Amino acid sequence: MKVFFGEIEVTTKDRTELIDISSYVGDHVHKSNINDGLCLVFTLHSTVSVVVNEHERGLMQDIVKKIKEEFPKGAGWLHDRVDDNADSHLASTFIGPSRIFPVKDGTLVKGTWQNIFLLELDGPRRRKVIVEVMGE
Amino acid sequence: MKVFFGEIEVTTKDRTELIDISSYVGDHVHKSNINDGLCLVFTLHSTVSVVVNEHERGLMQDIVKKIKEEFPKGAGWLHDRVDDNADSHLASTFIGPSRIFPVKDGTLVKGTWQNIFLLELDGPRRRKVIVEVMGE
Amino acid sequence: MKVFFGEIEVTTKDRTELIDISSYVGDHVHKSNINDGLCLVFTLHSTVSVVVNEHERGLMQDIVKKIKEEFPKGAGWLHDRVDDNADSHLASTFIGPSRIFPVKDGTLVKGTWQNIFLLELDGPRRRKVIVEVMGE
Repeated sequence: MKVFFGEIEVTTKDRTELIDISSYVGDHVHKSNINDGLCLVFTLHSTVSVVVNEHERGLMQDIVKKIKEEFPKGAGWLHDRVDDNADSHLASTFIGPSRIFPVKDGTLVKGTWQNIFLLELDGPRRRKVIVEVMGE
Repeated sequence: MKVFFGEIEVTTKDRTELIDISSYVGDHVHKSNINDGLCLVFTLHSTVSVVVNEHERGLMQDIVKKIKEEFPKGAGWLHDRVDDNADSHLASTFIGPSRIFPVKDGTLVKGTWQNIFLLELDGPRRRKVIVEVMGE
Repeated sequence: MKVFFGEIEVTTKDRTELIDISSYVGDHVHKSNINDGLCLVFTLHSTVSVVVNEHERGLMQDIVKKIKEEFPKGAGWLHDRVDDNADSHLASTFIGPSRIFPVKDGTLVKGTWQNIFLLELDGPRRRKVIVEVMGE
């Protein structure tokens, strides 16, 4: 059995933003030399999430709009007294810090319309994502 | 270490629908001959999710109702200009494409009230779910 | 390859409550003697979730408030005819029963502001969480 760790670094530009990291994840899977296993895409931040869906410009704007409606900034959250980003923490809590994928025949398994995105919730910032591949 | 891949094919009948796939997942775990490990239940579609909860008819209708309220169809989404299903993509993005389970003593570990469902968000369609079991 | 199973038992005090279980999860990872792999934190209950975010008292209250607003109790849910906790099941369905983490150099990998919480959605009750560590 082998375990491989890779990292992706991203600089975000907006407060709420989707960054397509699919090709970087795929590169790490190839570099891992693992044929069959699992690939965990995990962020170390509490105001970031990882999500999977179609890379279509309109949809990406819809996702950002939905985030802002669902987790409104400055809506009287208690955490805003400490740090002005309770909405970002809430979104990350509900959506989660990671997504996990099958790896088969040396390739990341995902559907045609499934791209992998870092979901920035409190940018702009420099962000890090861990890509762990485990298998044989 | 062993890695096993199985597939479940489902034909959905409604636009938003829960299909209980627990027994199919359990069958794949038995077929894998893996005693201890992890079982990933992963959909390749961007308008489907996998969820876990109780198989009670009323609750299953509540989940469908909540999805429709939370992700309303035709609410001015930009993706609807391309394909009339932005709501389906949004729900799948937030809920995620997979759930993962422990496997112990050759059996899928889940609670008495935990069933595994394919959550159709843009049916009716023919859908596929990957069941990957990894362990020893 | 090794697979380790641990358990965490928690007694909750409120109907909706966050219990920080980070140190218990970390202890199980050390006990497992696994250097590199994955750690799955999984609840067997259908009215509990596992979430990851910052342990800040205000934020923890914000999360509880958001849960109650997003999944209101007694809002005419059909499952309430069977058991008066449809809201709890709904929240658990959407948020999910688990979170999964990398394990590297014998340590659970998580960010400075990432703590692991059992999210009680229908307490007070005695609850159980499985910690599975798999790797080498």
